[in-house]
Amino acid sequence: MGRSRGGAALITLTTDFGLVDPFVGIMKGVMASRAPGVATIDITHGIPPQDVLAGALVLRHAVPYFTPGTVHLAVVDPGVGSARRALCVETDTAVLVGPDNGLLSLAAPSTAIRRIVELAEERFFLTPRSATFHGRDVFAPVAAALATGTDPDDLGPRRPDLLRLTVPEPTRRGSAIHGQVIYVDRFGNLVTNLPGRTFPPDRVSISIGRARIRGVSPSYAAVARDTPVAVVNSWDLLEIAVRDGSACERFGAGVGEPVIVET
Amino acid sequence: MGRSRGGAALITLTTDFGLVDPFVGIMKGVMASRAPGVATIDITHGIPPQDVLAGALVLRHAVPYFTPGTVHLAVVDPGVGSARRALCVETDTAVLVGPDNGLLSLAAPSTAIRRIVELAEERFFLTPRSATFHGRDVFAPVAAALATGTDPDDLGPRRPDLLRLTVPEPTRRGSAIHGQVIYVDRFGNLVTNLPGRTFPPDRVSISIGRARIRGVSPSYAAVARDTPVAVVNSWDLLEIAVRDGSACERFGAGVGEPVIVET
Amino acid sequence: MGRSRGGAALITLTTDFGLVDPFVGIMKGVMASRAPGVATIDITHGIPPQDVLAGALVLRHAVPYFTPGTVHLAVVDPGVGSARRALCVETDTAVLVGPDNGLLSLAAPSTAIRRIVELAEERFFLTPRSATFHGRDVFAPVAAALATGTDPDDLGPRRPDLLRLTVPEPTRRGSAIHGQVIYVDRFGNLVTNLPGRTFPPDRVSISIGRARIRGVSPSYAAVARDTPVAVVNSWDLLEIAVRDGSACERFGAGVGEPVIVET
Repeated sequence: MGRSRGGAALITLTTDFGLVDPFVGIMKGVMASRAPGVATIDITHGIPPQDVLAGALVLRHAVPYFTPGTVHLAVVDPGVGSARRALCVETDTAVLVGPDNGLLSLAAPSTAIRRIVELAEERFFLTPRSATFHGRDVFAPVAAALATGTDPDDLGPRRPDLLRLTVPEPTRRGSAIHGQVIYVDRFGNLVTNLPGRTFPPDRVSISIGRARIRGVSPSYAAVARDTPVAVVNSWDLLEIAVRDGSACERFGAGVGEPVIVET
Repeated sequence: MGRSRGGAALITLTTDFGLVDPFVGIMKGVMASRAPGVATIDITHGIPPQDVLAGALVLRHAVPYFTPGTVHLAVVDPGVGSARRALCVETDTAVLVGPDNGLLSLAAPSTAIRRIVELAEERFFLTPRSATFHGRDVFAPVAAALATGTDPDDLGPRRPDLLRLTVPEPTRRGSAIHGQVIYVDRFGNLVTNLPGRTFPPDRVSISIGRARIRGVSPSYAAVARDTPVAVVNSWDLLEIAVRDGSACERFGAGVGEPVIVET
Repeated sequence: MGRSRGGAALITLTTDFGLVDPFVGIMKGVMASRAPGVATIDITHGIPPQDVLAGALVLRHAVPYFTPGTVHLAVVDPGVGSARRALCVETDTAVLVGPDNGLLSLAAPSTAIRRIVELAEERFFLTPRSATFHGRDVFAPVAAALATGTDPDDLGPRRPDLLRLTVPEPTRRGSAIHGQVIYVDRFGNLVTNLPGRTFPPDRVSISIGRARIRGVSPSYAAVARDTPVAVVNSWDLLEIAVRDGSACERFGAGVGEPVIVET
């Protein structure tokens, strides 16, 4: 990873720290000090506070768009300062760094994992280490070390597995498939856990609350203004939107809202 | 543009994607993969959702502060996935990339345009291409190509024009000039469409709602706390503010609010 | 500072401009034009509008995590366009640039100051200079000059001091120490002005409103969900939190709320 493999070193950041406090800037200060010239890209700092599953979903869908070997630092860490482990997970396409609470798991399918290392070597950490901000004191300096060529095995002992989260799976009931909303974006679009490309676009009927949407459309713009529409979104999932509006507001729906597809 | 002209390549981003979702980070992943080492600067991702005119205004006032040849990627794109064109517009000072819905038009006055190219060469796009996120699949890879020296003419055929938006113009009625608020910033300052430097600062009277402000002041701090004040702002436009407060809240005014100047 | 000392040049930004408007992007355009290749890191742009003390606190706690010689540009500037001075303050560890309204003072203890220079040499500024946006017209070009090796003394005359802000100090009353909340973060954690490491963790009792917290815990996770907890935070200050919740909401408390420690 990093420079040792000949590419330009890059670290991404995914956290629930927001951008109002200086936490993210301070982490970047640590990384710039220890890995001068390494570039950083913010995936997002807008994960809802302590929502580990949302962070894991975002990582899963973002990591594939980065160069293999990129170091992905992720911190959604309600257990900071407790006995929860800190990990470096190397996969075929990425180097993930973060707490062992499931946050890294959706971006690290078992078949792609090369090694899992517990971050135990304290010489890589900042001293003194606070009890509340391991993003600054543990994860940022470790990401900087990885981006400048440190071998993951130098960071601590191997571990056989990591804590795994699961996304709720759709279920079949008779001729209907029951799914749910798993993510709501800033436009109020409702992303479901239903694989978008498996339905015949012209023949499905999609129910959310009392509303019914006929067919999967090729784009938001295929329907009239203020009209509900179902599309296959950029994560290849079925998404419910309202053209030039907010499906979240229209349907009063959030994460967990049932969505039923009938063919 | 980009490296081919000897300068450091730079891509700016202006979108309505916000920073809560990972959309912007994913676009930067695409650009970092295809144009390693190219720097990016966020102009803003806070354009109100689908507000093409706000995006066009922001681009017009931001582009002049960047080095000529900078690639400016802009996405406020309610028509994504429809038949609306995607464009590269080269001007005397900038290379603009985005949808052909007027977003680029205020930063590209007719007299400064060198060429308009439709983004038609799909080999530059990501495959498969989603119906909902051309920022990732079309605009980011094209911006990366431009920043690494691709000639705009390689991207598709020339087009004679682009869709143009117009900012509402002030009108004269007797001795008064009737304008309106066209932008509200985070401080609640009300930016009008009235050219600030054309009024004699000491002799004008400015009306908004039932309030009347006498004269154009040299700075916010020229009046007492909580006092309304008119200034010529950083876009050379007449702006109405409240010192250490919010004119937006004070006057309950937003975009479209009439502002009348009498001399 | 900057390249002249052999390190990679870096400029940080701390403002109350937010990220919705294009102000920050425009400042970065100015810096990229005048100091191509210089990296920037956002500490935060989320300082509450015109809250100079919040900006000064953030700078104090962020600057130590950056490489000595880093240029820190800060703009929380309700007096923009007035007679307030603009300064460059060089300390043993940092080069600070911003208005002389106290914003820089907590990051620049008297004993660490090497020189204070008033930004008076207009040839470094943008022309024309607006009355409302010195971040763009004064501070950004000056930071770019400093990051590319300009000596501070070239920017204007030396000044003997800068305007200083003070953080409210805790007071002792009998056996109790009376402090207050000085910062609330996005998680709703309440940061106090009480030095966290001076209290015996097991023997203190902490009062906020009608609530009482016994002892200082080693981490948020040391208590049960939804339980109030006091910790020593990453700024070495006593902080009141609610595990997996918001102390700000629980206690209806904000900046200024009294916090009393009894041993």
